[in-house]
Amino acid sequence: MSTSERLIESTRELLWERGYVGTSPKAILERAGAGQGSMYHHFKGKPDLALAAIRRTAEEMRATAEGVLGGPGTPYERIAAYLRRERDVLRGCPVGRLTMDPDVMADAALRAPVDETLDWLRERIAGIVEEGKAQGGFAASLESEEVAAAVVATVQGGYVLARASGSPAAFDAGVRGLLSLLSAHNTRTE
Amino acid sequence: MSTSERLIESTRELLWERGYVGTSPKAILERAGAGQGSMYHHFKGKPDLALAAIRRTAEEMRATAEGVLGGPGTPYERIAAYLRRERDVLRGCPVGRLTMDPDVMADAALRAPVDETLDWLRERIAGIVEEGKAQGGFAASLESEEVAAAVVATVQGGYVLARASGSPAAFDAGVRGLLSLLSAHNTRTE
Repeated sequence: MSTSERLIESTRELLWERGYVGTSPKAILERAGAGQGSMYHHFKGKPDLALAAIRRTAEEMRATAEGVLGGPGTPYERIAAYLRRERDVLRGCPVGRLTMDPDVMADAALRAPVDETLDWLRERIAGIVEEGKAQGGFAASLESEEVAAAVVATVQGGYVLARASGSPAAFDAGVRGLLSLLSAHNTRTE
Repeated sequence: MSTSERLIESTRELLWERGYVGTSPKAILERAGAGQGSMYHHFKGKPDLALAAIRRTAEEMRATAEGVLGGPGTPYERIAAYLRRERDVLRGCPVGRLTMDPDVMADAALRAPVDETLDWLRERIAGIVEEGKAQGGFAASLESEEVAAAVVATVQGGYVLARASGSPAAFDAGVRGLLSLLSAHNTRTE
């Protein structure tokens, strides 16, 4: 792996574990096994490196979500697959956790990939709810964008519950709760 | 307000805005208008002061939630009132955001009030779903603890969506989405 790659990957890990304010340039260099000169050769500084790291994390999250949302099955099954996909729940969401980082939120460039990714996710799921309504699987009375927001919020909030309790069980409970409510609107037999 | 009180209140604000790692003893003293000596007179240090601050924030959150959950109305209406209660959405949840703070999560004493509060909230809401099932308002097939986890997760994740997009609209959308799903299980006329 090139030095530039190692710097990006180390920054991604540290942002996930420690957040932006908790990630010092020194810690990045130590984890990447790189010298200060190499960091400034490749990046303008911590914000520039963080931007590269956040963009890559956001792209990966999108690709992973699309893998299940664009997979086989009825609209209900695809949303269920997204909610149930394997996650390292206790680590939290590498994108969502950045919303609690005041320095990331205060910087329009750093916030943009976070906003765009969660926005894309909501729109993607809303589209699937629309498909379900058109096919008659979901009740026509459902507001697809609102249901999509509830789906994404349940995942993001599930991380909060799991981390608070120190167990993934709380995440799973929230997902099962939402699916039990959603399934009543799913008129197709699973 | 006493110096001790000012120190606790300043720490509460800073933890909410900046998180634990982003809150320096210096910043607390500046905001409280207190000297270093007074901090060490009243508290053993930053962790001790943070514990007092987190406990108070947790107690307030619990009292606010109980204010609506223990209020008038059917079980559905009380849960809806909790979801819709006025919130400073863009600031995030002062308790939930601490779950993304690695230093708080790594310290059993600091994590305890966060865990206990969210746990109490889930149990409280689960009890209300049970009431609804007993009264015939909610479908007997609902798992009350799972529905409660979905309710709390929607709120916590709603903050994430709102902060990412810079607008409370995403929070409100998630809440409306969840309520539309829940209302199908509510067999009483509102």
